[in-house]
Amino acid sequence: MQATGMLSHTLARFALDLRWETIPEPVRRRAKLLMLDAIGIAYASAAFPFAHSARAALAEFGAGASPVIGHGRSLPPRDAMLLNGVLIHGLDYDDTHSAGIVHATASTLPCVLALADQRRADGRSLLAAYVAGMEVTTRLGAVAKGGFHQVGFHPTGLIGTFGCTLAAAQLLGLDVARAVMAQGIALSMASGSLEFLQDGAWTKRLHPGWAAVGGVTAAMLAKHDYLGPRAAYEGRFGLFPSHLGAEADKADLSLATAGLGELWEIENVAVKPIPACHFVHGSTDAAIALRRAYAPDPQAIRRVLALVPAGVVTTVCEPLATKRAPQNSYDAQFSIPYAVASGLLRGRFTLDELDDAALADPAVRALAARVEYAPDPDTTFPRHYTGEVILEMADGRVLRHREAINRGCADRPLSEADIAEKYLANATRVLPRDHALRVQEAVLDMDRAGAESAALADILAAVPRRAAA
Amino acid sequence: MQATGMLSHTLARFALDLRWETIPEPVRRRAKLLMLDAIGIAYASAAFPFAHSARAALAEFGAGASPVIGHGRSLPPRDAMLLNGVLIHGLDYDDTHSAGIVHATASTLPCVLALADQRRADGRSLLAAYVAGMEVTTRLGAVAKGGFHQVGFHPTGLIGTFGCTLAAAQLLGLDVARAVMAQGIALSMASGSLEFLQDGAWTKRLHPGWAAVGGVTAAMLAKHDYLGPRAAYEGRFGLFPSHLGAEADKADLSLATAGLGELWEIENVAVKPIPACHFVHGSTDAAIALRRAYAPDPQAIRRVLALVPAGVVTTVCEPLATKRAPQNSYDAQFSIPYAVASGLLRGRFTLDELDDAALADPAVRALAARVEYAPDPDTTFPRHYTGEVILEMADGRVLRHREAINRGCADRPLSEADIAEKYLANATRVLPRDHALRVQEAVLDMDRAGAESAALADILAAVPRRAAA
Repeated sequence: MQATGMLSHTLARFALDLRWETIPEPVRRRAKLLMLDAIGIAYASAAFPFAHSARAALAEFGAGASPVIGHGRSLPPRDAMLLNGVLIHGLDYDDTHSAGIVHATASTLPCVLALADQRRADGRSLLAAYVAGMEVTTRLGAVAKGGFHQVGFHPTGLIGTFGCTLAAAQLLGLDVARAVMAQGIALSMASGSLEFLQDGAWTKRLHPGWAAVGGVTAAMLAKHDYLGPRAAYEGRFGLFPSHLGAEADKADLSLATAGLGELWEIENVAVKPIPACHFVHGSTDAAIALRRAYAPDPQAIRRVLALVPAGVVTTVCEPLATKRAPQNSYDAQFSIPYAVASGLLRGRFTLDELDDAALADPAVRALAARVEYAPDPDTTFPRHYTGEVILEMADGRVLRHREAINRGCADRPLSEADIAEKYLANATRVLPRDHALRVQEAVLDMDRAGAESAALADILAAVPRRAAA
Repeated sequence: MQATGMLSHTLARFALDLRWETIPEPVRRRAKLLMLDAIGIAYASAAFPFAHSARAALAEFGAGASPVIGHGRSLPPRDAMLLNGVLIHGLDYDDTHSAGIVHATASTLPCVLALADQRRADGRSLLAAYVAGMEVTTRLGAVAKGGFHQVGFHPTGLIGTFGCTLAAAQLLGLDVARAVMAQGIALSMASGSLEFLQDGAWTKRLHPGWAAVGGVTAAMLAKHDYLGPRAAYEGRFGLFPSHLGAEADKADLSLATAGLGELWEIENVAVKPIPACHFVHGSTDAAIALRRAYAPDPQAIRRVLALVPAGVVTTVCEPLATKRAPQNSYDAQFSIPYAVASGLLRGRFTLDELDDAALADPAVRALAARVEYAPDPDTTFPRHYTGEVILEMADGRVLRHREAINRGCADRPLSEADIAEKYLANATRVLPRDHALRVQEAVLDMDRAGAESAALADILAAVPRRAAA
């Protein structure tokens, strides 16, 4: 295997060559909107138990001066990365790259935010490193074609480590040889288990931040000439052979580099309009549309049927008794019955619908208990997460609405205004509106000439006066 | 699967119940000797490039007050753990548990040293936490029966994480429920790739310290009620199913708990008499014995033949041209020809034999180039790493020596005096002899009534005046 033919070499050259000036303006704009989306979610996460727990644990290891979103300059760089990752990914509301099956901003943004701040880099450097990390993470994720999930690894953590390594390599000014070594070192630090799926544990939320911790540690070691193996991905015990098991044959390494630097995968990253599993988005929006069109009286609904892609049944429809009576916010995020009932009765599925009070709402629970599902023969899944809701009314009418393309996916992206609206709804759960707007302006302006990443870090970290919002 | 039947639950109960008072005196003594051995190696590592590199990299993240052996109270707790792990494991001279195929002290000692110090625990608590970590790591390693090596994972890192998690859980005073969660969290942080085998990278040296970093982070999160999955080991995507692939069927979970608390696996941990791969120990000692018995003139040696277990050929005999002409210390540590030539000509294989000057010694290189090997039909490998060297002399004599049981293994353990001698030889490469003896006394006395771990940490961290030694 020739050194120049190695994937770690190709990715290192791409990441290290990337400059703000060479990134097309629409890609830059998209990057800032994705960061804004993630930052809004981080504010919204602050009140949840997983955030309290992680914050208290990391504080025991010692204080620092790196920015934690909404929580001051309170932790050393790598613990700030870990906690910001928890805040961004903690609500399962952050962006997703479908082909890579990765939440790439949740690892990349915490990594570049703390490191750019520590290195006193400007905003343009932060943005370029972010784009490098996003492209590497989404592309490496795509190589596996879903194989990691079969074996039991969570690519947001496992793969995110390598994207963070190269984002950090760029900010640290590594040369190609050292950036190759850095990826090899990262191979010894990359992790992320799917075992949380078995009992609803919180470990998924740790994966992106831990990827940032490992990535930046690997890059820093390589900067100081620590030697890593060169064939990080395709070597005998490289990432794909060792972590894909029987699925390794299906992996396609060429997906990591096809169109690299010309086609921007960051433009295929989907922003979630609803704080729940992507698989429930179509049905939720269909229910909301029925509510808006007909405002049906729940007493007058004889039957509620959701048509769903057969491929999502095990995740969001079964076991049906559990899905109809979610016990916690995580259950609710993966429940078609709860989402449809919320849409029909409340006309929305926001973070408020994950509160204990909302989960316990007798009207929603009563309707959720009556939601049926059936496989949708006309779905274009997995390209689109379709959803159709059909109401049979007591008066004999049949009301139906179909979402043939789920909002937020690459074929029906959220508009800039949609993303800004989502950001404000999230951020103002914690921040006064004027504070939230100043953050928005700082993020979207991060790459104006002369803007410093440390100033962005200051405003993101600022502890809010508690807002009525 | 019942909660009380889960391995994570059984191991948590064992580790949390363990107290200095309930550990048999010979086990305590053995524990201190293993720690002493590791500490001597850590001093000896200080001058090697991998140590300089790791130290410089971690320093860039910020200073702290935790002890780094021979380098002051210079880093925050987790970076001190990572660096101490590099120092202990960096020379491949530290202890090994054969059935577990793990270097357990290299992860466990750094973890308990920094954490006990930070928590102001006494020396007895440090020792008890160390024994807990050692028992868990060696036993979990044994479960896999070598399977991790087939897939490409390095159990010293991967498995060491769980031993450190429970050692930390004990020092942090977790209850069983939280210690179960901690192991589940650790599953999302455990890593360690064997890809370094392909090109001699330095990543192996990072694995034990990174295991400590992940383990203590997992335990701290669990302390603050962060939820981890319960079936860390045997769950659908637990450690063994997800990381063993096709080898998972061979794993035997019962090995983790057989005789737990009655049989002490720490007594089966082997101390290395020679700073090289275990597989070359028998041949090296055979060559040294021939030198002592006959002092053969190399010019008068017509043929040198090493009889080796067939199972070690790919590791330490082939490719033969490379093994006969090692390019660096790592090559030399895995070379039967170099080890045999050193033994015959120098009568030893110490750390001095890994210096560039020793590697370049024309006499050794000339003799190494003539060393042949053949499979040993009478070997008891893998129970013993046998070695026999046969010299055909120009005068017609055939001189031979056989090491049927390699020194340091469980059937032929190093004596306390051997270990102390090894410690002093290593430590005095850096420390003045009186300083080295004070360290030795502090280690062997760490569990006298009233001894504080912080005082031990102080003396271990003390920066030596450079010694003539």
